[in-house]
Amino acid sequence: MDIRKIIVTGRMYKDLETLSTLDSTREYLFLPEEEVSSSHYDWADAYVAFKPTASFHFGKLQWVHALGAGVDAFLNNREWKQDVLLTRTIGSFGQKIAEYCLSYILSDVQDQDRFGQLQANREWQPSKPKLMSELKIVVFGTGTIGREVTRILGSLGVTVCGISRSGEPNAHFHSVLPIAEAASMLPHADWVINTLPLTEATELLFDSHLFSYMSGAGFINVGRGASVNEEALVEAITRGQVRKAVLDVFREEPLPAASPLWTASNVIITPHISAVTGVDEAVDGFLTVLNYLERGEEQLSQAVNISRGY
Amino acid sequence: MDIRKIIVTGRMYKDLETLSTLDSTREYLFLPEEEVSSSHYDWADAYVAFKPTASFHFGKLQWVHALGAGVDAFLNNREWKQDVLLTRTIGSFGQKIAEYCLSYILSDVQDQDRFGQLQANREWQPSKPKLMSELKIVVFGTGTIGREVTRILGSLGVTVCGISRSGEPNAHFHSVLPIAEAASMLPHADWVINTLPLTEATELLFDSHLFSYMSGAGFINVGRGASVNEEALVEAITRGQVRKAVLDVFREEPLPAASPLWTASNVIITPHISAVTGVDEAVDGFLTVLNYLERGEEQLSQAVNISRGY
Repeated sequence: MDIRKIIVTGRMYKDLETLSTLDSTREYLFLPEEEVSSSHYDWADAYVAFKPTASFHFGKLQWVHALGAGVDAFLNNREWKQDVLLTRTIGSFGQKIAEYCLSYILSDVQDQDRFGQLQANREWQPSKPKLMSELKIVVFGTGTIGREVTRILGSLGVTVCGISRSGEPNAHFHSVLPIAEAASMLPHADWVINTLPLTEATELLFDSHLFSYMSGAGFINVGRGASVNEEALVEAITRGQVRKAVLDVFREEPLPAASPLWTASNVIITPHISAVTGVDEAVDGFLTVLNYLERGEEQLSQAVNISRGY
Repeated sequence: MDIRKIIVTGRMYKDLETLSTLDSTREYLFLPEEEVSSSHYDWADAYVAFKPTASFHFGKLQWVHALGAGVDAFLNNREWKQDVLLTRTIGSFGQKIAEYCLSYILSDVQDQDRFGQLQANREWQPSKPKLMSELKIVVFGTGTIGREVTRILGSLGVTVCGISRSGEPNAHFHSVLPIAEAASMLPHADWVINTLPLTEATELLFDSHLFSYMSGAGFINVGRGASVNEEALVEAITRGQVRKAVLDVFREEPLPAASPLWTASNVIITPHISAVTGVDEAVDGFLTVLNYLERGEEQLSQAVNISRGY
């Protein structure tokens, strides 16, 4: 693959201008999204961004590099051109997402809200927090992110079961089941964490049927918003099937001000911050793949399997 | 040591009645504190409780077993009788205290309060949380508790430096300094955690002098309240030397309703819950030591070095 001309766009385009210094042999164009026109795609060999612009078409592109871990914005509602390589950023998303999840689980286990209320009332009412090792957690997704979440929870003694497309055993998890059998793991889960990519198979996976198997579990979504039926989630909280939800991703982002999620009981909302790509990480991720391509390496862990969707 | 008669008292005395079944060869007396009289100490060979009763004297006692990790209530203002063995409970306090500390550090790193405020205003304002691996933390105390705190922080990539009486190097810590040189480590600390036992050397250790070396560190006290000058702490928060304090232990407990700590800015109060002894743990801890004594073993890790004070 001979990459000579590269277009870089999206919210990080200015931060990435350093690439033209780090790699002076190629021609780079750094543009805000709204300035990328259809003709740019007929000029560039490669496209680097978090998502396609409105004007996106394959044109002359041989390579598309996603600055985030998720590539659903590239694949959804688009027939991918067979010989265009799609790669994604791996970076430290696993660590970031693991720390996000752990922070909300620990706040809950340590009764931080209750002790905050007691403090406000100057009340001294000791109680004994659970230990993490008493928890059972089900993680949907056994890829790099799900595995890192599991490694960190495991280091605190949590029993973590995984759910994956294939259900193949994986050393990081206590056990792994395929998505079709997920329901059997849910009744005893203290927490359920979704780290799955958005694909046809995971769209609206978390619906009233799946929630009905949970009995008081906490639910964390750090995968994609469109994997969750938001109305069904609110209903499941009302029914006590879900005790608490911690949501970082939403069907529509930014979450519209009119969404009932903002004020739903026992729902914590964060603005898609559990795995923000840092500039260094974006630069490293891109240059790593570029290097592999220059050397003609073919087995890239960053390459997306188009038919699988991640 | 021949232990035949044992008195068990304090808040857990009823829960521990199971001991008379588990160890039917000895005579046990389970009493609430207020019913323990001076004459009971002339009857018993061993005393088991969290702290001495008002009527405590050595009498016929050969062995005193503390149900908690701290023994300052036994040693302070009392000349210990040389041939009385003092032991303490080790159990899972390290894990418990580590999870307590981690929960408050992660809440802070993940900006949970800020995102909670944003949610209340239906505002979507992303920002990028730090990673734990960017933090430098100083842990006072390199014993079983300090080491477990450090192990768990270390598994998230935190750089942890230790402060101990001796300053002896310890594989769990990035480096260790003696208390007298602690100040040199404080200017760059993101968090300072006190896990030290209360002894003459650690009483009021955290005073305005020590706080003056911190520049915006968070401070967590899971050791003993009397190691901290509470007025100096509030002053240090006002000055910005301490950015936030998370306090689980206090000079006087329960913390009096009139204490200014309840409402001080950037102070989080919890009611001494970071290392609550569980019943199983109390039973196991006691029986383990009893077993050692029966077998005549002399090197007990649970034994307190009286002159050292822990």
